[in-house]
Amino acid sequence: MSSVEILEDYIPQLTRPSYLIVGLPDAGLVGTIATEFLVKKLGLSEFATIYAPDILPPIMHVRDGIAKSPLKFYHNGKNMIVFHSYIALPFSVINQIAKTLIDFAKKYGINNIISITGIPVENRLSATTLNSFVIGNNQQVTEEIEKMGLSKKFGEGYIAGPYAPILSYSQREKLNNIIIVVESFMDLPDPEASAIALSILSKYIGFPLDTEELLKEAEEVRERIRGLMSQTREELPKYATGRPMTYA
Amino acid sequence: MSSVEILEDYIPQLTRPSYLIVGLPDAGLVGTIATEFLVKKLGLSEFATIYAPDILPPIMHVRDGIAKSPLKFYHNGKNMIVFHSYIALPFSVINQIAKTLIDFAKKYGINNIISITGIPVENRLSATTLNSFVIGNNQQVTEEIEKMGLSKKFGEGYIAGPYAPILSYSQREKLNNIIIVVESFMDLPDPEASAIALSILSKYIGFPLDTEELLKEAEEVRERIRGLMSQTREELPKYATGRPMTYA
Amino acid sequence: MSSVEILEDYIPQLTRPSYLIVGLPDAGLVGTIATEFLVKKLGLSEFATIYAPDILPPIMHVRDGIAKSPLKFYHNGKNMIVFHSYIALPFSVINQIAKTLIDFAKKYGINNIISITGIPVENRLSATTLNSFVIGNNQQVTEEIEKMGLSKKFGEGYIAGPYAPILSYSQREKLNNIIIVVESFMDLPDPEASAIALSILSKYIGFPLDTEELLKEAEEVRERIRGLMSQTREELPKYATGRPMTYA
Amino acid sequence: MSSVEILEDYIPQLTRPSYLIVGLPDAGLVGTIATEFLVKKLGLSEFATIYAPDILPPIMHVRDGIAKSPLKFYHNGKNMIVFHSYIALPFSVINQIAKTLIDFAKKYGINNIISITGIPVENRLSATTLNSFVIGNNQQVTEEIEKMGLSKKFGEGYIAGPYAPILSYSQREKLNNIIIVVESFMDLPDPEASAIALSILSKYIGFPLDTEELLKEAEEVRERIRGLMSQTREELPKYATGRPMTYA
Amino acid sequence: MSSVEILEDYIPQLTRPSYLIVGLPDAGLVGTIATEFLVKKLGLSEFATIYAPDILPPIMHVRDGIAKSPLKFYHNGKNMIVFHSYIALPFSVINQIAKTLIDFAKKYGINNIISITGIPVENRLSATTLNSFVIGNNQQVTEEIEKMGLSKKFGEGYIAGPYAPILSYSQREKLNNIIIVVESFMDLPDPEASAIALSILSKYIGFPLDTEELLKEAEEVRERIRGLMSQTREELPKYATGRPMTYA
Repeated sequence: MSSVEILEDYIPQLTRPSYLIVGLPDAGLVGTIATEFLVKKLGLSEFATIYAPDILPPIMHVRDGIAKSPLKFYHNGKNMIVFHSYIALPFSVINQIAKTLIDFAKKYGINNIISITGIPVENRLSATTLNSFVIGNNQQVTEEIEKMGLSKKFGEGYIAGPYAPILSYSQREKLNNIIIVVESFMDLPDPEASAIALSILSKYIGFPLDTEELLKEAEEVRERIRGLMSQTREELPKYATGRPMTYA
Repeated sequence: MSSVEILEDYIPQLTRPSYLIVGLPDAGLVGTIATEFLVKKLGLSEFATIYAPDILPPIMHVRDGIAKSPLKFYHNGKNMIVFHSYIALPFSVINQIAKTLIDFAKKYGINNIISITGIPVENRLSATTLNSFVIGNNQQVTEEIEKMGLSKKFGEGYIAGPYAPILSYSQREKLNNIIIVVESFMDLPDPEASAIALSILSKYIGFPLDTEELLKEAEEVRERIRGLMSQTREELPKYATGRPMTYA
Repeated sequence: MSSVEILEDYIPQLTRPSYLIVGLPDAGLVGTIATEFLVKKLGLSEFATIYAPDILPPIMHVRDGIAKSPLKFYHNGKNMIVFHSYIALPFSVINQIAKTLIDFAKKYGINNIISITGIPVENRLSATTLNSFVIGNNQQVTEEIEKMGLSKKFGEGYIAGPYAPILSYSQREKLNNIIIVVESFMDLPDPEASAIALSILSKYIGFPLDTEELLKEAEEVRERIRGLMSQTREELPKYATGRPMTYA
Repeated sequence: MSSVEILEDYIPQLTRPSYLIVGLPDAGLVGTIATEFLVKKLGLSEFATIYAPDILPPIMHVRDGIAKSPLKFYHNGKNMIVFHSYIALPFSVINQIAKTLIDFAKKYGINNIISITGIPVENRLSATTLNSFVIGNNQQVTEEIEKMGLSKKFGEGYIAGPYAPILSYSQREKLNNIIIVVESFMDLPDPEASAIALSILSKYIGFPLDTEELLKEAEEVRERIRGLMSQTREELPKYATGRPMTYA
Repeated sequence: MSSVEILEDYIPQLTRPSYLIVGLPDAGLVGTIATEFLVKKLGLSEFATIYAPDILPPIMHVRDGIAKSPLKFYHNGKNMIVFHSYIALPFSVINQIAKTLIDFAKKYGINNIISITGIPVENRLSATTLNSFVIGNNQQVTEEIEKMGLSKKFGEGYIAGPYAPILSYSQREKLNNIIIVVESFMDLPDPEASAIALSILSKYIGFPLDTEELLKEAEEVRERIRGLMSQTREELPKYATGRPMTYA
């Protein structure tokens, strides 16, 4: 296994319970649009990056003239760490990145890993409401969310792609992990789905978040994130090694 | 060899003689339809899963909101363990999975591994009766089944695919392994073939099983399992590395 | 190098001089048709198989309901061991199989390894007589065969495919190896060529063999072995990594 | 990791602050045209080459009848080392070459690594002025360049290709690295862009350089470097593993 | 690195200065035609072969009924060893073969390695004289050849293919290596170019050689070596991993 390092500028102190929010490029970019919005809207501070040149493509993310790893950790100074990827993750690395995130969560004493993703539905264009679901690696948390009236439990089916190994590793390591799944486009960026996921997230963790702005900027977001969507589109079929990436 | 772990919730005590029933996606999904029916009909309890993120595709099986490994072990509280896979096994992993199953069987003191599979026949659509055969790794067991009048012995030919390494490993480890082979469709789910295999199985092991229900639900089963059939269809040619998967 | 084991039911005692006859699927299946005929006609006893699940395709050979490795050793109770493969050998394994055979021959104190193969000729269809040649890894044996009037020496050219590493390894290990080469079809099973090779073999080793039967059953043999021919056809170009498999 | 050696004829003494200028084949060959011009115009002395036959293609660069490694180090006898590649770097080696360059820079006590590259723009043909940007791995150096009025900082975007791992490794090793980025053609050699980059470089480091000559010889340079451009064209898409190589 | 062995029948004693002449299949087969002619014309004795079944294709060279490795060493009983390959070398092995040859040369105390190759020119068909060039790994030897009036030095350009790693390794090991390069066809055997190379070689080393015979037999040579040319044609593009194999 090639080495994956987390380069930390400093180590933020977290209050309990604490959360790791994960946004990876996937169907509709629902997760990355959500985490990017969190970072901007809540003014989160970047404090660490993933350094793994042997397995990641040779791409650096540039902001204000400074190049950095495109896989970054942010925190809110309280109880929340956000992991956001500015690039599509090659299929071959998702296991190692998942393991790195879980080890990171354990080191920081994090209680709950929350992933955000989209579930492509055929009638997305004509849909007036987008259903949301929760999938977890243990019964307690999913039922809690259902009882809070935030989201239904996902029924029977499959989850494939970069969030699957996070579920799998965290289960083995006895760490809570849930995925907020919102109906979405497959290969069009879907800020509306992200807004719904964020709304569930903010109620579950308990912090105020106005997602109106995200809906207003939807068109702009779609434009800005076009490049990432096209990268991700190439990885999507590989995520499931030839299998339909369905949650049926 | 990458690591394959069995994560056990608990270790059920088995009476002797004991059996491991194996249902893997293969021609006509004859094996997995059979084991899925056993799990439901007999109300078997899930107690273990295979954890092998390095070699399995990143897919989790979700039921009632909870994500788990798609490779699961069930038991009946007495003498039977059922291994069922909810995903098609990539060609590259079947040797390792076979080895894992045999090591598991030895650890649990299991006396007999029984696999279920289909053998595609060209005239399946017009067939009024489906012939069944038994293949074993030693003469005693196959002759016993023939004497019991349950099934004929398979004549001369080949068996290729995921059940072949199970035969091979168990032979080396001096463990009995038989395969119940029923004539079937190639790439259409075939519950009728599964029903015949289950009928032979229940008589051989000696437990009552009404397979009528399976035949009644045949259409529903075919529909539900379409996704798995399409995954499996992609692996079938690879199982035999370009060789016709025939038992001729 | 992945492990290749020989699983022996027992170890037959050989008289001296002793011979290992090798029949591998190759041009015209000349070798495997010959060794299969020897096994049947001389009533040879199977006593060992090659177990190498990590490198061989997942295929078992079934006879009378019993599944076994398709790479088998037989003996005649006296001075002859026959190695026969019921499957085409993937290009990637021929070096390891060659090494395994030579180590086996040394362990059993075998004096001479004799391979049988075909050399495709363009005018095979119209040929009334099929020429035969002998290739060896040292001068003494090839000249002996020539002096016995059994076959001409092969002139200048190349030999490519599964028999080449056997020549090469045995040369390094100071073991005699000759190949009986008979003009044949390329990708049609050629029992006539096998009959000629067997006739040379029986005279060289000194045992009576009536090959008339093989010629009578020629049509039946061709039919039975069609599947193996089609497997082998896929490997033939790989044997020579893109090079014409000529002996020119 | 395969071995990469630097074969040094001798070790030049550098005055402080010292610079490593890196010219690798990339968009418009902006970097290699620049470093080749520096070598010729400043009469730099070759003193070392990279020896890595296991990972580099089997190509030697010949000058005046003498064959040498195509990856060469030159120095100016004072404060500057230039690394120039006469061949396109295969995608698979850019991480190792980057690591080798940074280790080399550390060994020589170099203070600043300066890479030169082009950023393809669609309207290059009609452009009357070519914008330049600077990207760095820390704020201090990029701001210094901006304050000197030499170049704007690059805004938000990505940098992909052989210069990305140099940024990444040097960041981890706390070594300053900046990239001078000039608008250029994608797959036509662009000496005009190189001239602009060189002009920024000479002002930043503080040595006189007349780039007029480069502009005069532009046509000749384009002709001479055609072969390298065509090699590089094949690598460009791989540099970004299927991703658009944009700085957007 | 897989093992490459040299199997020596005996170790010839060489007078000083001594030479290793290398003929590998390459453009126009200029090298192998030359070394084959040397072997025949000078009656050289074969004394060693390269044994490397793990990396070479499974091909044996047969002469007079005896199969041997197609990579052979010959000597003239005095000061000259000739290495000749009867097969095209797969791209993946040329580094290891180069290393083996240089280690061999050092063991035998050889002073100079001389390779022979062709440089394809577009107007070969209409050329009345074929220019020759010399490339070396140090200035002394190339200048010596130029002073002797045997050949011009090669100007600026590249050398790619199986002779490049020999130049590279020998340079690192401080062993003299020159290449005699003669203008030739690309993928037609070119005995005329070989004759010119041989003439330079014989004058440089100082032994009489009548190359008239080679020119007389040119047509026959072309015919005999057609198979090797067609093998080589497949490797030529790989030698340069997609790069034009030019010396421009």
